[in-house]
Amino acid sequence: MNEFELIARLTQSLPTNETVVTGAGDDCAVLDLGVPEKLILFKTDAVVEGVHFTRETPSEKIGRKALARCLSDIAAMAGTPTAALVTIALPKEFNADFITQIYDGLNALAKKYGVAIVGGETTTNPERILISISLLGTVSRGKQVLRSGAKVGDAIFVTGELGGSLAGKHLDFEPRLEEARWLAEHFSLHALMDLSDGLAGDLRHIVNTSKVGAMLLKSALPIAHEARLRAKASSAAKPAALAALTDGEDFELLFTLAGKDAVKLLDAWKKQFPKVKLSCVGKIVAGEGVTLQDKNSSHKLNANGYVHFANA
Amino acid sequence: MNEFELIARLTQSLPTNETVVTGAGDDCAVLDLGVPEKLILFKTDAVVEGVHFTRETPSEKIGRKALARCLSDIAAMAGTPTAALVTIALPKEFNADFITQIYDGLNALAKKYGVAIVGGETTTNPERILISISLLGTVSRGKQVLRSGAKVGDAIFVTGELGGSLAGKHLDFEPRLEEARWLAEHFSLHALMDLSDGLAGDLRHIVNTSKVGAMLLKSALPIAHEARLRAKASSAAKPAALAALTDGEDFELLFTLAGKDAVKLLDAWKKQFPKVKLSCVGKIVAGEGVTLQDKNSSHKLNANGYVHFANA
Repeated sequence: MNEFELIARLTQSLPTNETVVTGAGDDCAVLDLGVPEKLILFKTDAVVEGVHFTRETPSEKIGRKALARCLSDIAAMAGTPTAALVTIALPKEFNADFITQIYDGLNALAKKYGVAIVGGETTTNPERILISISLLGTVSRGKQVLRSGAKVGDAIFVTGELGGSLAGKHLDFEPRLEEARWLAEHFSLHALMDLSDGLAGDLRHIVNTSKVGAMLLKSALPIAHEARLRAKASSAAKPAALAALTDGEDFELLFTLAGKDAVKLLDAWKKQFPKVKLSCVGKIVAGEGVTLQDKNSSHKLNANGYVHFANA
Repeated sequence: MNEFELIARLTQSLPTNETVVTGAGDDCAVLDLGVPEKLILFKTDAVVEGVHFTRETPSEKIGRKALARCLSDIAAMAGTPTAALVTIALPKEFNADFITQIYDGLNALAKKYGVAIVGGETTTNPERILISISLLGTVSRGKQVLRSGAKVGDAIFVTGELGGSLAGKHLDFEPRLEEARWLAEHFSLHALMDLSDGLAGDLRHIVNTSKVGAMLLKSALPIAHEARLRAKASSAAKPAALAALTDGEDFELLFTLAGKDAVKLLDAWKKQFPKVKLSCVGKIVAGEGVTLQDKNSSHKLNANGYVHFANA
C-alpha cells in the first residue's frame, strides 16, 4: 500500500459535524464557524530533515520554507492567512542558535504576510528535526476555489515556471497569495490548487475530483531555466519537459476557468502582474486522466506523472 | 539551554496581528476571527514513539491519546472542540493496519466529543512514528480562563486523582471538557490549566504568570491508588505524595477561584459530578514559587517540581 492508498483508506469515513464545509482532500479544510462574511481555512504541513531540507540548508531558509508551504495552501483556496502554530520536534542535544535562526526565517515571512505566530510546542524526535506548521486563514464566503470544479472546455493555467525547483526555488518561492486572491476576485475560477508534487501528478487531483480529463500541450509548458540547464548539463538528467511535469515543490498556482475567459485573463494578468508569467498549458476534456500532446503524438501520463519521452 | 529556556527565547518577540487575543504561553491560543459571540481556540500537540507511547502500546490507544491530550487543552480554556487535522509522520515501511487502528482510536474519541477530522497529512519520519494533532475550538466571549488570573487568597483545586498515570491513565483519561465548561459557567474562575507535567511544575506556570505564590497542603493531595501501590511495592519508587506532585500526564484540571467560593463550589460539584473527585489542595499567597506545607514543616518546591521528602 502506498501513501495515496493509505490516505484514501484513512479518509473514507472521518468524523464530521455541522461546521465542515470542505473536509479532507482539498488544499485546506474549509469550516463555517459563524463569521458573518467569511469561512475559515485550516491546514497543516510538515517538513522533515533529510526529506525536505538537510543539515546544510541555511537555517533561516528551513523556517521560511516550513511556513511558505502552508501559505501556498492558503493561496490555493484564494484565502488570506491569519495565525500559525509551530511544532518543532528535535533531538535532545539541540543547537539553540540553529533553532532560533529557523524561527527567524519563519517569523520574517510571517510578518511579511501579516501572520501571527501564536504558539506551538517543542517536542522530542531523537534522530532528526521535524517542523509542522498549523495555519488558519479566512476566505470570503463563496470565494474559496476547490479542486473539484473543473469543467469540460476549461482552459488550464499555471503561474510562473515549472521544474528544477531543487536548484533553489523550493527554499525561496513566494506563495502566490496576492495572485490567487486577485484571480478569484476578478474571474470565475472553476478549480484551483498549488503545485507541490509536479504538474502531471497534481493535475490528476483536479481531473479525478472533477470527473473530467485533461490535455496538456507540451510546447506550452513554461519550463524553468534551471530545468533546461540540468537537462543540458547531463544526459542522465531528466529531459527539461519531463522535469517541468514531474519535479516537486514548484509551489505555483494551477487553475482552470472557462475557455472563453482565457484571453481576457491573459490580458488583465499582464497588467496586474507584469513580472509573473502566466501560461495556458492545456484544456479540460471529457473522459479521465491526463494526456500530453506533442507535435505528432499524444501520451497518457501515468499516476506518478511519468511517461516515456522517446524524443524529449 | 533546556526546553523551557529555549521556548522563552523563541516566544520573546513573535509576529502578531489584530486577531490575537492570547498568543503563546497559555493552554491554547485565543483568536478573534469575528464570530459574534465566540472566540476561537487553536492548539497543537504531538506524541512521539518511544516518548509518549511504544510499539507495544495498543494502536487504538495511541490515536486516542494523541487527540485526548489536545482536547484536554481545550478543556483548560473552558472551551468546546470543533475540528482537527491529523499529521502522521511514519517510516517508509509502515503497517497500514496499524496506522488504520491509530485512526480508529482517534476517530472514536472525536465522535464522542463531536469533533470533525478535516484532513491532515502523512509524511516521512524514518525512525519512529510521530503524530501531531492540530485542534480548533470555540469559547463564549469572555468565558475563556487563562493561567494568569490567580489572586492572593484564591483556593487551589484539582479534579480527579494525581500520580501514577503511566500505569494506564495516560492512555485512557477523559478530557475534562464538560467539567471545565460547567465550572466556567457557574463560578468565577481566576486561573485554569490542565495538568500535563505534574502539579508542582504546572502550578508554577500559574503563579509565575499571575505574579503570586502558592502553598500546597501535602495532606490534601488526592493521591492516585496507582501511585500508592507503586510506592508500597518498591522502596526505589517515588513516595506517593511525590508522585502526585511530579508525575506527568494526569490531564486533570488545575484551577483557582476566590476562597469565599470554595465551599459553595464543593457542594455544587458533588451534585453535578458525583463520580469525579474535586479537591482543594492549597491557596494562592503573596510572594512567588510553590511551597509544600507538611504537618510540621514547609518546603519550597523547585522548578522541576522535585523536593526532598525526608519523611515521605
